Amino acid sequence: MLGNFEYANPTRLYFGEDSLGYLNVELPKFGQTIMLTYGGGSIKKNGIYDQVVEILRANGKTVVEDPGVMPNPTVEKLYEGCRIARENQVDLILAVGGGSVCDYAKAVSVSAYCEEDPWEKYYLRMEDVDNPVIPVGCVLTMVGTGSEMNGGAVITNHESRLKIGHVFGDNVFPKFSILNPVFTYTLPEYQMVAGIYDIFNHICEQYFSGEDDNTSDYISEGLMRSLIRASRIAIQNPADYEARSNIMWTATWALNTLIAKGKTTDWMVHMIGQSVGAYTDATHGMTLAAVSMAYYRHIMPCGLAKFRRFAVNVWDVSPEGKSDETIAAEGLGRMEAYMKELGLVMNLRDLGVTEDMLEGIADGVLP
Amino acid sequence: MLGNFEYANPTRLYFGEDSLGYLNVELPKFGQTIMLTYGGGSIKKNGIYDQVVEILRANGKTVVEDPGVMPNPTVEKLYEGCRIARENQVDLILAVGGGSVCDYAKAVSVSAYCEEDPWEKYYLRMEDVDNPVIPVGCVLTMVGTGSEMNGGAVITNHESRLKIGHVFGDNVFPKFSILNPVFTYTLPEYQMVAGIYDIFNHICEQYFSGEDDNTSDYISEGLMRSLIRASRIAIQNPADYEARSNIMWTATWALNTLIAKGKTTDWMVHMIGQSVGAYTDATHGMTLAAVSMAYYRHIMPCGLAKFRRFAVNVWDVSPEGKSDETIAAEGLGRMEAYMKELGLVMNLRDLGVTEDMLEGIADGVLP
Repeated sequence: MLGNFEYANPTRLYFGEDSLGYLNVELPKFGQTIMLTYGGGSIKKNGIYDQVVEILRANGKTVVEDPGVMPNPTVEKLYEGCRIARENQVDLILAVGGGSVCDYAKAVSVSAYCEEDPWEKYYLRMEDVDNPVIPVGCVLTMVGTGSEMNGGAVITNHESRLKIGHVFGDNVFPKFSILNPVFTYTLPEYQMVAGIYDIFNHICEQYFSGEDDNTSDYISEGLMRSLIRASRIAIQNPADYEARSNIMWTATWALNTLIAKGKTTDWMVHMIGQSVGAYTDATHGMTLAAVSMAYYRHIMPCGLAKFRRFAVNVWDVSPEGKSDETIAAEGLGRMEAYMKELGLVMNLRDLGVTEDMLEGIADGVLP
Repeated sequence: MLGNFEYANPTRLYFGEDSLGYLNVELPKFGQTIMLTYGGGSIKKNGIYDQVVEILRANGKTVVEDPGVMPNPTVEKLYEGCRIARENQVDLILAVGGGSVCDYAKAVSVSAYCEEDPWEKYYLRMEDVDNPVIPVGCVLTMVGTGSEMNGGAVITNHESRLKIGHVFGDNVFPKFSILNPVFTYTLPEYQMVAGIYDIFNHICEQYFSGEDDNTSDYISEGLMRSLIRASRIAIQNPADYEARSNIMWTATWALNTLIAKGKTTDWMVHMIGQSVGAYTDATHGMTLAAVSMAYYRHIMPCGLAKFRRFAVNVWDVSPEGKSDETIAAEGLGRMEAYMKELGLVMNLRDLGVTEDMLEGIADGVLP
C-alpha cells in the first residue's frame, strides 16, 4: 500500500562518457572558492584530478584542496574538513570520488557552520539541520552507495567504535552529480564487486518489508534484474560500457528515496554491517555481504510470501509443484550462488572479526 | 546501452489521502495572486473545489478564476488563459484537474508572456522558451497523462485540425503536485480505463525501442506489471485505495522522463492517436487504445526480440518449445485480452472516425 509521503529530489545528474564537460555548466552557478575533496590519490594516477582541475581553472575558480578522505570517513577528518571549509569560506564542495568522499562532503556541508560538535548534534542526537549548508557537487568515480543523489552521510568514530549514518533532507542532497561510467573502469575488482553488492543490498533492505501490493517493489525487482545481469557481464569484462553504465544507474535509483516510497524499512543488514565496519574498518559492501545470507535466512519465515515472490520474480525460480518454503529457499540459494560468483566475502571471520568483538558489534547495531 | 543524458526533475510531490493539506506548505512560497484553473465543474460537485478554495482563503490569497478547460484544451482557451494570467499578473497557476488541466496550465505558463503567437512559436515551430514563465502547481483529480511531473503540454487547434504536444524543459515542470488517490474515485469508468491505458501506452512507447540492455527497460517492466495488477483490481472495485494509489504512482513514473533515459523514442502511437483526437475530439486514452494493436502487430517483426521479452517478462508467457514469433504474438494476444477486459475502445470506427478522415489523420501524424 502506498501511504502518505513526499517525494522531491533536487539533484541534477549528468550521465555518460562526455558528462565531465557539464562541470562548465554547473560551476558558474556557484561562488569563487571551490573546495576540492577527494580520497587517497587514485584520481591523480588515473588523470581525473587533472581533468577536473583544468576545468576549475578555466572557470577562474580558486581551488582549496581537501585530500585524504579515507574509505570510512572519520570524525577527525570531518572536523578537519569543517575547518578548511570555514577558514576559506568555500562556496561549493566538489567531491571527486566514491561514496565515502560524497558522504563526507555532505557531512562537512552541514557541519562546517554547526555551532556545537556536529558528531554529537547530527550523529549521536540525529537532530535536524538548522545552520547554513554549503552546496555540494559530485564527480563519481566509484559506484555503490547512491550518495550522488541522496542525503546520506555515514561517519565513523573509532574511539567510540561507532559508524553512524545520518540521512539528511533534500536541502543537503548534492546540487549536481556527474556520472561517467568510464571513470569506474580502473577500480580494483574487490572494490567493484563490493559496490555492486552494496547496490543489491540497498534494494533488498527496502524490498523485504511488507507483503502489500506496492509499485515500489515492482520497480525494485526491475532494478535487481538489471543489476544481476549487468554485474555478471562486468566481472567478465570490467570495461564493458553497457554493463558499467547500467550498474551505475541502478546504484543511483537503488538509494535516491524512490523505492522506499510507501514502505517501512529497518535497514538491519546495514546496521549490522556498519557496526562490523566500526570494529574492522572493512570495505562497506563486504560487511553487508558477510552478514546477509545468515540474516535473510533468519527472517525468511517471518515474510515467506515476500521471499517467495523474490525467488520467482528476481531469480526466475519455477514455482510449480513446490511449497512456498522450498521456492523461497531456492531464491536465497540462487542469491548466495550469485554472491559467490561475484567473489564477495561471505562470512565475518574473513573480515577480521574475532569472537571477542561480537558483543561490542551487537551493541553498536542500535547505538 | 545508457548513452549520454541529463536527468533533473524539480517537481515536489505530496502523495496520499492527507496530501491536500500540503497546499498550506506550498502556497506561502508564491506571491499574492493565484489563478485557479479547472475543467467543466466536476470538482464543484465532488467538493474538491471547496476544499481548495478554503485553503487558498486561509492563506490570504487573491483567487482569479479560470474555469472551463476542456478535455482536449484548445488554442482559443489557451489565448483566453494567457489574457487572464497577464491582466491579473498572477503569481501561480494552480491547476485542479486531470492531465488536460495540467497540460493547459503549463501551456499558459509559458505563453502568457510570449511576445508573439504562442501557437506558432511553441507548437508549430517548437521553439525553446525565452520569456518569463509563471510557476504552476497541480492538484490531480484524474490519472494517466503524467502531466503532474513533466513538461508536456498538448494543445488542439480545431481550425487547422492539429493536436500537438510540446515537451518543455524542467523549468516548466510543475513546482509541486498533490496526488490524492481518493480524488480519483468519482471518475466515470470510461475515463478511468482510458487513463490506465494512457499510462500503459506511455510505457510501451518508451519500451519498444532498442534491443540493447538498458536499466530503463527493466524499470518499465516493473511499472507495467504493477499497473496491470492494480488496474484489474480497480475495475472490480474503483474505491480500492491500494490499487488506485499504485495506478496513480505508475502514471507519474511512466512519463516523468526516467524510463526514457538512454532510449530513442518516436511516440508513434501518440502521434497517430493525437491526430485522431484532432478529428474526433475523442478521449485521449481511447484514441491510443484504438490504434495500438494494429500498430504493434505491424512493427513486431522489426523488433522481435523486444516483443519476445515483453511477452515473457510482462505477460509471463512461457517460452519453452516455442519460436520467438509465437512467444511475441502470445504476448500481444495477452495484451489485447487485457485491453478488452478493461473495456477499452479497440478500433477507430467506434470513436467516430469515418473513411474520408483517414487521409487527413495520416497527414496530421507528423505535421
